Amino acid sequence: MRIMVIGGDGYLGWPTALHLSARGHEVAIVDNLVRRSYDHELGTHSLTDIPSIHERVALWQALSGHRITLGIGDICDYSFFESFFVDFAPDAIVHFGEQRSAPYSMIDRRHAVYTQSNNVVGTLNVLYAIAEHAPDCHLVKLGTMGEYGTPNIDIEEGFLTITHNGRTDTLPYPKQPGSMYHLSKVHDSHNMMFACRIWGLRATDLNQGVVYGLDTTETRIDPRLVTRFDYDAVFGTALNRFIVQAVCGMPLSVYGKGGQTRGFLDIRDTLACVELALNTPAARGEFRVFNQFTEQFSVQQLADIVVHAAAKHGISAQIAHVDNPRIEKEEHYYNAAHSKLIELGLQPHFLSDTLIESMMTHISARTHAVRPELVMPTIKWKKNHGA
Amino acid sequence: MRIMVIGGDGYLGWPTALHLSARGHEVAIVDNLVRRSYDHELGTHSLTDIPSIHERVALWQALSGHRITLGIGDICDYSFFESFFVDFAPDAIVHFGEQRSAPYSMIDRRHAVYTQSNNVVGTLNVLYAIAEHAPDCHLVKLGTMGEYGTPNIDIEEGFLTITHNGRTDTLPYPKQPGSMYHLSKVHDSHNMMFACRIWGLRATDLNQGVVYGLDTTETRIDPRLVTRFDYDAVFGTALNRFIVQAVCGMPLSVYGKGGQTRGFLDIRDTLACVELALNTPAARGEFRVFNQFTEQFSVQQLADIVVHAAAKHGISAQIAHVDNPRIEKEEHYYNAAHSKLIELGLQPHFLSDTLIESMMTHISARTHAVRPELVMPTIKWKKNHGA
Repeated sequence: MRIMVIGGDGYLGWPTALHLSARGHEVAIVDNLVRRSYDHELGTHSLTDIPSIHERVALWQALSGHRITLGIGDICDYSFFESFFVDFAPDAIVHFGEQRSAPYSMIDRRHAVYTQSNNVVGTLNVLYAIAEHAPDCHLVKLGTMGEYGTPNIDIEEGFLTITHNGRTDTLPYPKQPGSMYHLSKVHDSHNMMFACRIWGLRATDLNQGVVYGLDTTETRIDPRLVTRFDYDAVFGTALNRFIVQAVCGMPLSVYGKGGQTRGFLDIRDTLACVELALNTPAARGEFRVFNQFTEQFSVQQLADIVVHAAAKHGISAQIAHVDNPRIEKEEHYYNAAHSKLIELGLQPHFLSDTLIESMMTHISARTHAVRPELVMPTIKWKKNHGA
Repeated sequence: MRIMVIGGDGYLGWPTALHLSARGHEVAIVDNLVRRSYDHELGTHSLTDIPSIHERVALWQALSGHRITLGIGDICDYSFFESFFVDFAPDAIVHFGEQRSAPYSMIDRRHAVYTQSNNVVGTLNVLYAIAEHAPDCHLVKLGTMGEYGTPNIDIEEGFLTITHNGRTDTLPYPKQPGSMYHLSKVHDSHNMMFACRIWGLRATDLNQGVVYGLDTTETRIDPRLVTRFDYDAVFGTALNRFIVQAVCGMPLSVYGKGGQTRGFLDIRDTLACVELALNTPAARGEFRVFNQFTEQFSVQQLADIVVHAAAKHGISAQIAHVDNPRIEKEEHYYNAAHSKLIELGLQPHFLSDTLIESMMTHISARTHAVRPELVMPTIKWKKNHGA
């Protein structure tokens, strides 16, 4: 298959591109490298040393014999994207190419507008390129479980059958996203559903949970193939951040009561899910939604698990509840369906002490590089004037 | 009350601004005048002769003694909007300032991206200005009944109580919008709901039906106060267009089977609804949705009504079913709640032969200006490649 990975320089895009390349697919990475610019802007950094995309791709070719095509540019720039799309002629697109941090989108108005414009316009451009040049191309798009929010009923996979006043219909699941970033993904989902309906496109929306982990089969081939690893309060995901805190002797920063429950998954399962979606594409005209996570944890549970694993590693980790910078329910019902990817064959890597300990070993070698001032949250959802 | 009317140079914004000014409110119009530019772009025009906004506002002051403040600029330009907002310090905002044509949004990728960026960023800027400078300010925002699409269950006003697997919650009503324009309004609704929740803003989303009519109490004071009147296939609404077709001896262009059912309302009721929303504002933190229409008709019914009224006017009008340029259900269930504005005191002007005949008289005096080539649809939803 000819597969374009948009956002292929990022935390998940890079190992996904390698994984698909290793499977013998023709892979092209499209990326504007803006994730590296966010680091320059915020003073953050990847705890792993990641070479430039050019070096990584050359190294991959030297080690594996597989060539990855590079398209450095912005998918919001249609003159660039359209011509690259036509040249590469993908059978499928895996679209990771969005600003993915909730706190980043909540910095201020400018960052909110940037996040929504960048994500929505980029995805619109992808949809138009497919509709105009290759309507058979399958779009596999990364959404987020955060699109659903925390309703008081079970969360289904994209759609819900509703009976109301004696009539029944299956409708898009109601969305209650919790940040300007999560909102942008809801906008994308609506746009994609419409494009499938009117143009007969095929699309899979992967509503992904919070990803943890670092190593994949391909990144382990050589240390220089490692993916990025963020531990800061803006781009670091919960478990990754907790492990860095434990290893560095910092308290694990649980926001508020810690009862916030979310879906989580191992980075290796992200790759497997994307591959499963690609191998069994949506039908023409179908907008398909998979909830992509393997286990539910509350933030408190996650912190407790890290404390427990750290103890085995000889570390006595502490938990510190900090003021929640977000506005979200801290105790709530949460039960989200996630069977469609299992039915396609996903074999989950459940969270284990072994995984956590192996990450701790990894990170222990990098503690000198950790900048503790980046870990605590500084971006707040509330305005001074707010109610 | 100090009321800012964004989009106050448009079909509904202008008579709304006059109406509120006549009631003694301090009114400011903010408009980038882009509606006039769309006419330049498309070769379309208002069938009524509308003076420049500067002339209209000066005339209104001369006739009524009421001053309307003018802010010519783009709400997407925050440096302009923020300073105008701070200077005027509104108690309420009525926000009509969006690209409002479904066909315009479907011309091509560029127009889709423009429509979504313009509408979403403009509304985000309004939300941020309120949150940062005047969190008590009530936002009355024009949405559209088209956000709901045509589900097979009753449409409620913004929210739906759902029981699923034995648990119950009241959630945002699922949305199935039918164009890039309608999608932009769904995006806005999600963004507004979030802003109310996290910043404690107060907002009313008026999901408006298709508006017909021309005269309001204030525009009738002087012919030069008339509002714009569009009859072309891009910006003309169904009934207005049918009346022009009848008067000019053109067949009434019903798209497809004509079973498409929508909510409709008289322009005078738009003004009344906005006023009712302003007079009973949403509470702090409340995101309130009103379905703003007074009657449901299918497009076929509407055409039949015009044929009937035209006969009384001595005109033998014909109906011509044309290929539907849109992709939409042409026969479907439709039953939408619209009681909240009635409960606030709305006294509807139902569609009557009298109204249609008075519009026919109006338009009869302008038939020389009608350009028949603008009436038939040319913008199609489907791509050549589409399924």
